[in-house]
Amino acid sequence: MRKTLKEIAELVDGEVVGNGDIIITGVSGIREADEGDITFLANPKYFPLIEKTRASAIITSRDIEAPTKSVIRTDNPSLAFAKIVSFFVALYEVKHPQGIHPTAILGKNVALGRDVAVGPYAVIEDEVSIGDKSIIYAGSFIGQYTKIGTDALVYPNVSIRERVTIGNRVIIHSGTVIGSDGFGFVVIEGLHHKIPQVGTVEIGDDVEIGANVTIDRARFDKTVIGKGTKIDNLVQIAHNVAIGENSIIVAQVGISGSTTIGKNVTLAGQVGVVGHISIGDNAIVMAQSGVSKSIPPNTMAWGYPAKPQDVAKRVNACVQNLPRLYNTVAELKKKIEELEAKLKDK
Amino acid sequence: MRKTLKEIAELVDGEVVGNGDIIITGVSGIREADEGDITFLANPKYFPLIEKTRASAIITSRDIEAPTKSVIRTDNPSLAFAKIVSFFVALYEVKHPQGIHPTAILGKNVALGRDVAVGPYAVIEDEVSIGDKSIIYAGSFIGQYTKIGTDALVYPNVSIRERVTIGNRVIIHSGTVIGSDGFGFVVIEGLHHKIPQVGTVEIGDDVEIGANVTIDRARFDKTVIGKGTKIDNLVQIAHNVAIGENSIIVAQVGISGSTTIGKNVTLAGQVGVVGHISIGDNAIVMAQSGVSKSIPPNTMAWGYPAKPQDVAKRVNACVQNLPRLYNTVAELKKKIEELEAKLKDK
Amino acid sequence: MRKTLKEIAELVDGEVVGNGDIIITGVSGIREADEGDITFLANPKYFPLIEKTRASAIITSRDIEAPTKSVIRTDNPSLAFAKIVSFFVALYEVKHPQGIHPTAILGKNVALGRDVAVGPYAVIEDEVSIGDKSIIYAGSFIGQYTKIGTDALVYPNVSIRERVTIGNRVIIHSGTVIGSDGFGFVVIEGLHHKIPQVGTVEIGDDVEIGANVTIDRARFDKTVIGKGTKIDNLVQIAHNVAIGENSIIVAQVGISGSTTIGKNVTLAGQVGVVGHISIGDNAIVMAQSGVSKSIPPNTMAWGYPAKPQDVAKRVNACVQNLPRLYNTVAELKKKIEELEAKLKDK
Repeated sequence: MRKTLKEIAELVDGEVVGNGDIIITGVSGIREADEGDITFLANPKYFPLIEKTRASAIITSRDIEAPTKSVIRTDNPSLAFAKIVSFFVALYEVKHPQGIHPTAILGKNVALGRDVAVGPYAVIEDEVSIGDKSIIYAGSFIGQYTKIGTDALVYPNVSIRERVTIGNRVIIHSGTVIGSDGFGFVVIEGLHHKIPQVGTVEIGDDVEIGANVTIDRARFDKTVIGKGTKIDNLVQIAHNVAIGENSIIVAQVGISGSTTIGKNVTLAGQVGVVGHISIGDNAIVMAQSGVSKSIPPNTMAWGYPAKPQDVAKRVNACVQNLPRLYNTVAELKKKIEELEAKLKDK
Repeated sequence: MRKTLKEIAELVDGEVVGNGDIIITGVSGIREADEGDITFLANPKYFPLIEKTRASAIITSRDIEAPTKSVIRTDNPSLAFAKIVSFFVALYEVKHPQGIHPTAILGKNVALGRDVAVGPYAVIEDEVSIGDKSIIYAGSFIGQYTKIGTDALVYPNVSIRERVTIGNRVIIHSGTVIGSDGFGFVVIEGLHHKIPQVGTVEIGDDVEIGANVTIDRARFDKTVIGKGTKIDNLVQIAHNVAIGENSIIVAQVGISGSTTIGKNVTLAGQVGVVGHISIGDNAIVMAQSGVSKSIPPNTMAWGYPAKPQDVAKRVNACVQNLPRLYNTVAELKKKIEELEAKLKDK
Repeated sequence: MRKTLKEIAELVDGEVVGNGDIIITGVSGIREADEGDITFLANPKYFPLIEKTRASAIITSRDIEAPTKSVIRTDNPSLAFAKIVSFFVALYEVKHPQGIHPTAILGKNVALGRDVAVGPYAVIEDEVSIGDKSIIYAGSFIGQYTKIGTDALVYPNVSIRERVTIGNRVIIHSGTVIGSDGFGFVVIEGLHHKIPQVGTVEIGDDVEIGANVTIDRARFDKTVIGKGTKIDNLVQIAHNVAIGENSIIVAQVGISGSTTIGKNVTLAGQVGVVGHISIGDNAIVMAQSGVSKSIPPNTMAWGYPAKPQDVAKRVNACVQNLPRLYNTVAELKKKIEELEAKLKDK
């Protein structure tokens, strides 16, 4: 999978400025790119990143001048890049299972669309429906009445319980559990009695869910993952959580029951969020933060407990400087004693 | 699953005060309840919560007067509520597997009680025993000599290794691993040599274990989960940990080797506990805390490192106020310089 | 598995000093040992631990005199102890699966070495190779073109995706996922587009990987776990991470993309590490730390954000003392006001 910059320019009807013979081996975002990658820049605000990126080439708009890197000029850099991403993805496609393996178990009234694949030892319970071209790998379990859309990809050893709804083009990685009971008990005379968890889970189109994730079903009603949201490995999503569209939930995040997360939110790695609060659209919570109160939209938050980033940074700077502050206070104390002594002398 | 308050009152031989035609759709604790729920109040200490709960109705004792919410008066609100919970659970029961699926693999000398169900592609190794009415779902693995009690429920794709003991009415959610090797190595000339992990795991009656939990077997002896304890998703319990009865271990908690947790303890989400310490009965450790020293019984602890809550809160308030303290110290410094200057003048 | 100290001494050609009739039931490191254990001491620096260890007996060099515990003197305590560990491991060996179970599914061109075992319902895809004496338990999945070395042990319900390379004597516990897609997206006009993750994972000899771990495949190139490294349960290792040899990664650690971890590094429980940094050889990062910047070799680091341990401890001591500092500052303020008043009086 090696293409020259010139070949890529042809794919998107763009114009090479710089060296068209550069070999491109991959695609990436402008910050994450490595040598060999092509990336793109649509927003003039980020022009300074052209100097910093490790990418070998950049797709830009027609109006960029005298770039310091090899670029492809196009009318619409975003669309051109999306096209190239699809092209690279297609090149790499692995051989997924095809057809219904004879050892796959299909219950009663299972509705399979066109070209559905079910791998060996997968178990599909009664009344399940699976849309066209979806693929269920070996050893996965799909519980009764669950609905899966079209073009979904469920990797090996996934467990999806009963009455869950999963959209189109959803990708679910191995070991993930969807629709397990919410963690709800009530103490009666010192013992924890289970509260029935009879809601469900609804996962929108174009969601991707990493490996060994857990998404609990709602007590009543439903736990919701909005369309286009991407969830990394080992994330815990409790009962009745609702996540909006196009959010990013990084590895090992935990979200407690009945919390609402907006659209385009980013929760960085190992963040914990308490129950019954809300995090507004476009908010970003930095890694390992502990969120104990609602966060307004468009806020960057950090810390334990999480605060707006500027407040948290100021507080943290103060904390790191504490040894000096203690010295300062000790000096002031000494000076005051000297002053007191002097005043007594007078 | 909709009942009028009147119908529910009849179930528990109680008296409606207020509107008996209210529709009840679920049960919950008084703090977690939503509209449509019925809850209960047994302890007069919590009477003020009657005003605050979102529940539509409350089961109370006979002596409550002039309630502001619709209530059912009963002789014993706790027992009445427990009865209603069971009633609602029964209403919702899903269709679990029945009988031994022809593809289930049973080793030699497997002892199955009455009405045991084993789902497709489950693997039960030699010498396992499973008690009456227990259910093992598809794709789960039960290792040699493991014993499971009666009325247990093991969801799909659970892995239970050899020689583990599991009590009655235990629920284990998908993806959970019980009896994996403890993490024990000894460094000999720069290399980590595995220390044999030949103990086991013992899980008491009425324990519930969430999805993708890991509970390691002991090095010798046993890792113990006391009866009635409830464990949420993605929790790590290391070798030789002992947890008492009726404790609550919330999602993503990690407990290191040989630590002892008492009865009725709550470890909130993402708490980490070091090895070889103990946490006393009824202790509560708040979310994301890092516990590095033993915690006495009846203590509420918080922070990193975890401290009694009042100490931790005071310290945290101080931390959040630091920018002001820096200002104060700067002002004091200035005043001292002024005083010094004045004194020189004299 | 009970041996007298005398019997053990004979195994390693050593000399008992003290009570040769003591019953030894296990082996352990000197700090972790319990009663009944035998341990060893090779480095004279640690002689004081002889007084503190809970072990019942210790293997030492020939030159130790007048020990307060029963010891076995040998020419090379490390090697003698390694021999005893192997001896104890052999005693406990459980009955692993043998041969290829008739329900195991083997794809085309699968190359199996001598005495390979594949359990029931395991799925081995096309072009896989598995070395001599390796064991694949029930329900595990091995993707196309993956190579597994000799004497490897893969427990039930493990998912290993395509084109992964796994060394000799590697142990992988249940529920673990290796080779899942890295978490990589690029935002194009507000939507997250998947970046193809077409690299692989390479796991060195003698690595042990706990239960429900996730190790993502690289975007290009490979995610690497160096030989002899041991990984505990529920650890997240992102795409393109490289870990050196003989490192220890404790439970629930998360390592973000493209980070490099050196040799002999220890990351304690629940540590989080950001992407694109490096942690030097022999570094130790203490539990729950959040590592946001590279850490030099031979450093002990702690905190959030992680700092060298001495700095972090000093800062933490300052933090814990804050309530006192506030009091001190309040007193100084009062004294200054008194001084100001006095000066005015004069």
